[in-house]
Amino acid sequence: MPFVNLRPDFALDGSLADEMRGIGRRARAAARLIALASAQTKDIALRTIAEHLRAAGAEILSENAVDVAAAKAAGQTSALIDRLTLDAGRLAGIAEAVEKIGALPDPVGRQVAAFERPNGLLIERIAVPLGVIGVIFESRPNVTADAGGLCLKAGNAAILRAGSDSHRTAVAIADTMRAGLVASGLPADAVQIVPTRDRAAVGAMLSGLDGCIDVIVPRGGRGLVERVHAEARVPVFAHLDGINHVYVAASADLAMARSIVLNSKMRRTGICGAAETLLVDRACAETHLKPLVEMLIEAGCAVRGDETVRAADHRVVPATEADWRTEYLDAIIAVRVVEGLDAAIAHIESFGSHHTDAIVTEDDAEATRFLAEVDSAIVVHNASTQFADGGEFGFGAEIGIATGRMHARGPVGIEQLTTFKYRVHGSGQTRP
Amino acid sequence: MPFVNLRPDFALDGSLADEMRGIGRRARAAARLIALASAQTKDIALRTIAEHLRAAGAEILSENAVDVAAAKAAGQTSALIDRLTLDAGRLAGIAEAVEKIGALPDPVGRQVAAFERPNGLLIERIAVPLGVIGVIFESRPNVTADAGGLCLKAGNAAILRAGSDSHRTAVAIADTMRAGLVASGLPADAVQIVPTRDRAAVGAMLSGLDGCIDVIVPRGGRGLVERVHAEARVPVFAHLDGINHVYVAASADLAMARSIVLNSKMRRTGICGAAETLLVDRACAETHLKPLVEMLIEAGCAVRGDETVRAADHRVVPATEADWRTEYLDAIIAVRVVEGLDAAIAHIESFGSHHTDAIVTEDDAEATRFLAEVDSAIVVHNASTQFADGGEFGFGAEIGIATGRMHARGPVGIEQLTTFKYRVHGSGQTRP
Repeated sequence: MPFVNLRPDFALDGSLADEMRGIGRRARAAARLIALASAQTKDIALRTIAEHLRAAGAEILSENAVDVAAAKAAGQTSALIDRLTLDAGRLAGIAEAVEKIGALPDPVGRQVAAFERPNGLLIERIAVPLGVIGVIFESRPNVTADAGGLCLKAGNAAILRAGSDSHRTAVAIADTMRAGLVASGLPADAVQIVPTRDRAAVGAMLSGLDGCIDVIVPRGGRGLVERVHAEARVPVFAHLDGINHVYVAASADLAMARSIVLNSKMRRTGICGAAETLLVDRACAETHLKPLVEMLIEAGCAVRGDETVRAADHRVVPATEADWRTEYLDAIIAVRVVEGLDAAIAHIESFGSHHTDAIVTEDDAEATRFLAEVDSAIVVHNASTQFADGGEFGFGAEIGIATGRMHARGPVGIEQLTTFKYRVHGSGQTRP
Repeated sequence: MPFVNLRPDFALDGSLADEMRGIGRRARAAARLIALASAQTKDIALRTIAEHLRAAGAEILSENAVDVAAAKAAGQTSALIDRLTLDAGRLAGIAEAVEKIGALPDPVGRQVAAFERPNGLLIERIAVPLGVIGVIFESRPNVTADAGGLCLKAGNAAILRAGSDSHRTAVAIADTMRAGLVASGLPADAVQIVPTRDRAAVGAMLSGLDGCIDVIVPRGGRGLVERVHAEARVPVFAHLDGINHVYVAASADLAMARSIVLNSKMRRTGICGAAETLLVDRACAETHLKPLVEMLIEAGCAVRGDETVRAADHRVVPATEADWRTEYLDAIIAVRVVEGLDAAIAHIESFGSHHTDAIVTEDDAEATRFLAEVDSAIVVHNASTQFADGGEFGFGAEIGIATGRMHARGPVGIEQLTTFKYRVHGSGQTRP
């Protein structure tokens, strides 16, 4: 399979702003076409892209080797180099993920609602693509294929901006996707990658490229997300923090509390769905606190706690108010004893980030109140916070997790990469 | 019924920014409470507010008289003075509209989706209020009660900012609503009005008041909406223009085309759903163009057209490209003959504003293509564009019409003043 460079020429000596505007205009034009592509056409395109990714493996891995060598020479951390490095297995996984996106049900054209008016007008609300989605990411090269594939499935054009470290790998993957699009009769510009490492390109994307970007999805660390929130002039699907709580209520089953707390905190500590704070009802502290704290410490988790928690285990270090506000993304947990449900909810509303919060309780009335009153994108009763994931929700895949209140909240799957329009069917009606 | 001033003191000699932040904080606190109010509590509150509005009629009309006198003294247009002026009948209409909002089904707590995962987790998507809605409006005092009532029904707190001309009337209405809230056991701060005419208050609202405003709804002319779009740092539900088209296709029934074109343009020329451009397929120009143009002119509409249109009637004045881009909001229409459906869609995509566009045709395949390919919030087959209205859609009432692509499009009723959260019900599940 040829490794075709279908990117338009990008005059680095020209005006970056002009070049970015050109990317925006081409994306908008491609979005009009991709929005009207049939489910079958899009699915074939995604399968074809997967084939092209497999066939272009050698070229992609060779570009990746250049990125990895540069990252090593620049003294990057081993964690970054691990995220950056592709091998045959990881590349196969990327291609397979694209294929799986193709197999998801088409979110475009769904009838979201339909109603007939007394005058005989039939009004339908129909899902349509959002338009052009700008994705800004850092070192994980798989985001190129995942994000491009998800945007495409939902009938959108994507403008991708890779981090400096993964730039060559991302360009190779995007070019391969573009070849797959063309081979499927779809416009290459449905997936574009910003062909420069110049950080000014990010600023241009955040300005919306003259109305040619409808939404920005940042995929990366806190610094990136903060910059995007501060500068973006278009809507953003993102979360800044995942300061997630597990509240162990008085009636919690201790065995269940143990397994949920352990999984919420320690399954993977670096993901946004990981718990960062454990709240324990004082009414069960005598029976539940010590076993939970010991379990965490024995699992390798540092515990920071209030006085009651410290009294339960001498290995607990004192927590300060800053701990209640910290997303550790590490094997550290803040533990606080609270005076019942209202205090737990008040703590979560004061210090949380409206991402994912869980209650462990056998009392259904208490669970109902927690689920109603905690104002987070995802609220959980008797299960782990680490289920905060598009795959675990059954969305097939997610482009990210949002904590904004508009349009998209929680895992952002293909359904939330669509919007809607009203189709009104008449037989000559005029308005009185 | 007492006319109670429940507004907190507003130190006009203090820092406006601080005072506005205080309004934001009080709104956020009230939003938490109102979000949890039952459907019944909210409905009783809206009925109570309606009663208070009736009982406070004399006070409201007396404040209105001061506003009207000032507007007259300032030499305002008779159109503005008409919009501004209340009488007993209009006030009764305002109270009745609030009562009707109360009678609508509660949009909060609806189960939008529910799915069970293979591991037994039950995931529900539940409608929840948006939070705090900032409404910025101009001279129509009824917006105070309408917007405040709609926000309340959807469980939101409202921060209202009236135009300078209607300020005293709006404050009187808002104070009456606050008294009704308190009498119903709900927080007065669920409806706040900015108690100053200082335009800097608008800028403060557009900044989002430290995250205390979730969305801005501007209700007013183009100047206001443009300022809001340019400056807002929070999402906006609005439309800038309603450059709406009626496309009369070759197979259109002439009688139907006549009544739809006349109604779309002339029923009311000043509303955003009014048609501004008529496109006629060249294939039916010989039979349809002259009767449509004559009908419009005889109804008192000025016609600006291309050469073919001018040849059909000597009273047509030449259209320039600017006419295709103009929202007249008046008895003026631009008419163009186009070469079939593709040209009609291309014209609409080039010059339209993605608000409401209609096709008149007896050819279902052509209608289907038009409805699919025209990328507007509302697309209509064989009916008037003037149905672009929340009441006509059966939403009960609307806070405005949006042409943005995110979250809310078309008429924004109470359903779109909500967002959602995920409720996850487990029985101890942890993530593998």
